[in-house]
Amino acid sequence: MIELPSKVTNAVQALSRLPSVGEKTALRMVMGMTHWKPSELAVFAEAVANLTHLKTCSECGMFSEENLCSICAHPHRRSSDVVCVVESVTDLLAIERSGQFKGLFIILGGVLNPLLGVGPEQLRMDELQKRVKDLGVTEIILALNPSVEGDATCAYIKNILPQHVRVERIGFGIPIGGHLEYLDSQTITKALENKKIF
Amino acid sequence: MIELPSKVTNAVQALSRLPSVGEKTALRMVMGMTHWKPSELAVFAEAVANLTHLKTCSECGMFSEENLCSICAHPHRRSSDVVCVVESVTDLLAIERSGQFKGLFIILGGVLNPLLGVGPEQLRMDELQKRVKDLGVTEIILALNPSVEGDATCAYIKNILPQHVRVERIGFGIPIGGHLEYLDSQTITKALENKKIF
Repeated sequence: MIELPSKVTNAVQALSRLPSVGEKTALRMVMGMTHWKPSELAVFAEAVANLTHLKTCSECGMFSEENLCSICAHPHRRSSDVVCVVESVTDLLAIERSGQFKGLFIILGGVLNPLLGVGPEQLRMDELQKRVKDLGVTEIILALNPSVEGDATCAYIKNILPQHVRVERIGFGIPIGGHLEYLDSQTITKALENKKIF
Repeated sequence: MIELPSKVTNAVQALSRLPSVGEKTALRMVMGMTHWKPSELAVFAEAVANLTHLKTCSECGMFSEENLCSICAHPHRRSSDVVCVVESVTDLLAIERSGQFKGLFIILGGVLNPLLGVGPEQLRMDELQKRVKDLGVTEIILALNPSVEGDATCAYIKNILPQHVRVERIGFGIPIGGHLEYLDSQTITKALENKKIF
């Protein structure tokens, strides 16, 4: 069997470390990259190598060059008494894209998952409690994904917050553009539970 | 709208240049990479940057550190009088994996595509003709993918080769494990044309 040069196999190995990239996809990517100019490869490599020492906002955990990110530093939002709890940066971005939320965020950095060794200490629970206390937050919106771990994390958060804080969770139901016939029973169950007067 | 730091957007832009990676996938990849250690990022970056100056076999076009790749240099294969014409390195690897072909290869580097500016000069047609002449090749197997461009390239190759060379094309039909009900009519037509006595 003919062997590929180590330059190629090294690159295939590197690319297959990316989420949802297997060896076959990585090989196809590398084959495409063999037609790139050395300068293009260098730009790509530099962009990846530079992904170190990303600074995050000391309060919410979003990427930020400053001590506070632009959301936490925004006077209108800072005076808000609602905090939305999300799992990741991308979830925060998704909510920001909707343009419907004008309060503050806390990025947990994951959800409780004892099997993977993720306990409350691995998540930004202390920052959440501190934020609630320091800013006089009266309302928490739990925007965690619906899963066993997400549900458990919501229950945990409700427990550690002071009684007077109103804790809500985002609504579950049929997504816009969805078709009842293709949706799972759990979603339909949730949609029936969450029915509203029309 | 909150903005991502330039380190992140640069990496997203770099990764979305990979084949079949869009901005959303690239962002997901970059989010995964933000948890990597600087040393892991450096290894990845180096593997990509090293993809330059890949040496190829002077005869078939396969990657090779030597002047001749291990297939072209193999005495048994070199004395073969059959040459298999493929489009790319990955197509060559696919045929080698089957273990059924013991002759030599020519990697064309693509197929004729006038719309994309790919003419015979952009492909390894001269090397193919030289190989046929120098090694006294009597048989050519065209292992090009079935498409308008692949068909045109096959016709072109048949035309430029000496009359005495037997030119064949790999068989088309139902793939093993395929289901007739899901296959397109062109494949079924080809399968009927290529029927054999059972």
